[in-house]
Amino acid sequence: MRANLTIDSRRLWDMLMDTAQVGGTPKGGIRRLSLTDEDRRIRDWFRAECEALGCSVHIDTAGNMVAIRPGKDNSRKPIAMGSHLDTQPTGGKFDGILGVLGGLEVLKTLHQAGYETTSPLALVNWTNEEGARFSPSMVGSAVYAGVYSQAQMDAVQDKDGITQGQALEGIGYRGTVKPGDLTFQAYFELHIEQGPILEEEAKTIGIVTGIQAIKWFTCTITGRESHAGTTPMAYRRDSLAAFAEAATEIRRIAIDHDGLATIGIVNAFPGSPNIIPGEMRFTLDLRHHKDEVLKTMVSKARIAIAEAATRHDAAYEVAPLQDSPAQPFDATCIAMVKAAAEKLGLPAREITSGAGHDAMYTARVCPTTMIFVPCAGGLSHNEAESATQADCGHGAQVLLEAVLAYDDRG
Amino acid sequence: MRANLTIDSRRLWDMLMDTAQVGGTPKGGIRRLSLTDEDRRIRDWFRAECEALGCSVHIDTAGNMVAIRPGKDNSRKPIAMGSHLDTQPTGGKFDGILGVLGGLEVLKTLHQAGYETTSPLALVNWTNEEGARFSPSMVGSAVYAGVYSQAQMDAVQDKDGITQGQALEGIGYRGTVKPGDLTFQAYFELHIEQGPILEEEAKTIGIVTGIQAIKWFTCTITGRESHAGTTPMAYRRDSLAAFAEAATEIRRIAIDHDGLATIGIVNAFPGSPNIIPGEMRFTLDLRHHKDEVLKTMVSKARIAIAEAATRHDAAYEVAPLQDSPAQPFDATCIAMVKAAAEKLGLPAREITSGAGHDAMYTARVCPTTMIFVPCAGGLSHNEAESATQADCGHGAQVLLEAVLAYDDRG
Repeated sequence: MRANLTIDSRRLWDMLMDTAQVGGTPKGGIRRLSLTDEDRRIRDWFRAECEALGCSVHIDTAGNMVAIRPGKDNSRKPIAMGSHLDTQPTGGKFDGILGVLGGLEVLKTLHQAGYETTSPLALVNWTNEEGARFSPSMVGSAVYAGVYSQAQMDAVQDKDGITQGQALEGIGYRGTVKPGDLTFQAYFELHIEQGPILEEEAKTIGIVTGIQAIKWFTCTITGRESHAGTTPMAYRRDSLAAFAEAATEIRRIAIDHDGLATIGIVNAFPGSPNIIPGEMRFTLDLRHHKDEVLKTMVSKARIAIAEAATRHDAAYEVAPLQDSPAQPFDATCIAMVKAAAEKLGLPAREITSGAGHDAMYTARVCPTTMIFVPCAGGLSHNEAESATQADCGHGAQVLLEAVLAYDDRG
Repeated sequence: MRANLTIDSRRLWDMLMDTAQVGGTPKGGIRRLSLTDEDRRIRDWFRAECEALGCSVHIDTAGNMVAIRPGKDNSRKPIAMGSHLDTQPTGGKFDGILGVLGGLEVLKTLHQAGYETTSPLALVNWTNEEGARFSPSMVGSAVYAGVYSQAQMDAVQDKDGITQGQALEGIGYRGTVKPGDLTFQAYFELHIEQGPILEEEAKTIGIVTGIQAIKWFTCTITGRESHAGTTPMAYRRDSLAAFAEAATEIRRIAIDHDGLATIGIVNAFPGSPNIIPGEMRFTLDLRHHKDEVLKTMVSKARIAIAEAATRHDAAYEVAPLQDSPAQPFDATCIAMVKAAAEKLGLPAREITSGAGHDAMYTARVCPTTMIFVPCAGGLSHNEAESATQADCGHGAQVLLEAVLAYDDRG
């Protein structure tokens, strides 16, 4: 019977395209900010779809929506799928949405086949994953996992001074379930990669082994402001020269450790064509899937900045801005995704998630993993975000297989 | 008789400090923007001082003030000294002012001694050297030398929409002499170095051999904007990484050619901590005292940017913004300054001016040189600008000696 369970990639694709109209932009993207009326409309649609499949839909006080499809043994915890339906201000049609609609397609496939799982299944739409209207991001899953409190979530204001709590009530999605009370056996999240690796390597499935550790710093190098025309090179304390050398060295450190290093913001002060910058301020984003390697990278980056500053008789400061430890995923869940890809003959590779996801928080409270599919050019958080019908379908099929394999464990 | 001609460094210092009250700032600097009421007040004072020494004061249509002290043979062209009395918005007490008041001290010394030169002497206060209120800078000497027209000068507006011509008339300093009609045998300008070389090398006198060539560029490196967490180092087209490598190489090029290279403005776009910059925009200021060497430096800098961009699969653009050729000074004038420093036993070295001065334009129409004295820390265009009474006095004494030596040539 299991052999016949095949998701309908066309049906999934049509759901993706049809629901993209809710908040759809002229450029083909979606603007569906968390807890806006567009969010309410897609939530209403999602609830109706799940209920039509015989699911009960539970809303917690954080607005997280959990649809539960009963199994043979409802004393067991549900095996969960999910992601989010909110988007960036100029978001695409796949980020988050594929994980929810892919899960919905799994439920439709099971429903159509009349297939009854042993454990109940759950499908979750997490509140405010993007953090675009209310910061921080991934707040629904964070409250679910006990990382943030409901009060903290409620107090956050958008730029118009509306609190997240008010917005949640405003769209009628303040539920009564206590977040975290509905616990899961496991959680599987299907998502586009948001990076170029799968596409470049012609892989269809990314077997996600965890979410990498991230450390952010704000850095300052302080030399001496002086005149570009009257200060010989030998007398300069050029903070920009020190910055350039440090940036090149930090890049080398990242490559050497198979990690990531990014300088995204840089400014020279005072900022005049004929003044040697007295101060450089820049951000530093360092990532690695192993905490201990990231720690080494941070030490070496600090040394690189210190040495470059010293060469130019400059002072420096490296101040921590954000710190998120590595979150490895569950070995059993990972093995099931891997086995599903193998069974289906899909080219796959293990991959670390470079970005944060709701799975980062569920992993703290239940066995978790993710399934990645390629997106064109690695582009995401962009209206031009794109994935193929075939890849979305393959991802949903792997999700189905992994969930059923987990269920088969009994 | 010549042996007794010694300037009075205390009198010069008192003039510097007393006149610093005209536009004086609480922090001890001067705000005396060109063609303001402060400028009028210092011009009125200057005229009265010169007339009290028996000089006739001529004002040209550009507002340049030329005081002429008769000599034995007034058929000869005057030997000129001068600089400017206007300042930056938060300027110091020496930039420009030392050249005018040093010349005034020379005239006072000659007057007091009853010394009569063969040629007449001239002392010039050039209009709007700083270019702070009306851009470009050095406009009075530029019109004098025929580089700008009177109409061009008059048309320039300040930020309030007042034209330079209106401002000139507003303070009553639109003269009737045609700029350039009053020609000089030679022109000597005393000035603070505005750089650190003399102080660092413990020299009192800079024998200025010319003004270096300057080329400005605006540069762009365009890679690909992508996600800091999901884009492996190998797949990046990081415009900042290319910039850093180019900046380091350009610095090396400047050192190798004994020139100057400065990147004063740099910005990363879009400018977010977790986005790899898709575009870097920066300025490049390259200088050398020889035009042909500067040309080589520009070629090599272009290659450095091109190669760095290519390594990161990025495009680049290097667009010229400003171009000022080298202006060598007159060998005879230079020799007289050198001889004066030697005669007085003052530690001296040849030096190229890194900044532009009115002497850059007079050098196009008459034999010219400059005399530099040290300023503390090389600091200028700053209220903390500082020079010692002794150094100012030595500079004025060298000015006196050089002018008399030129006069002695007959």
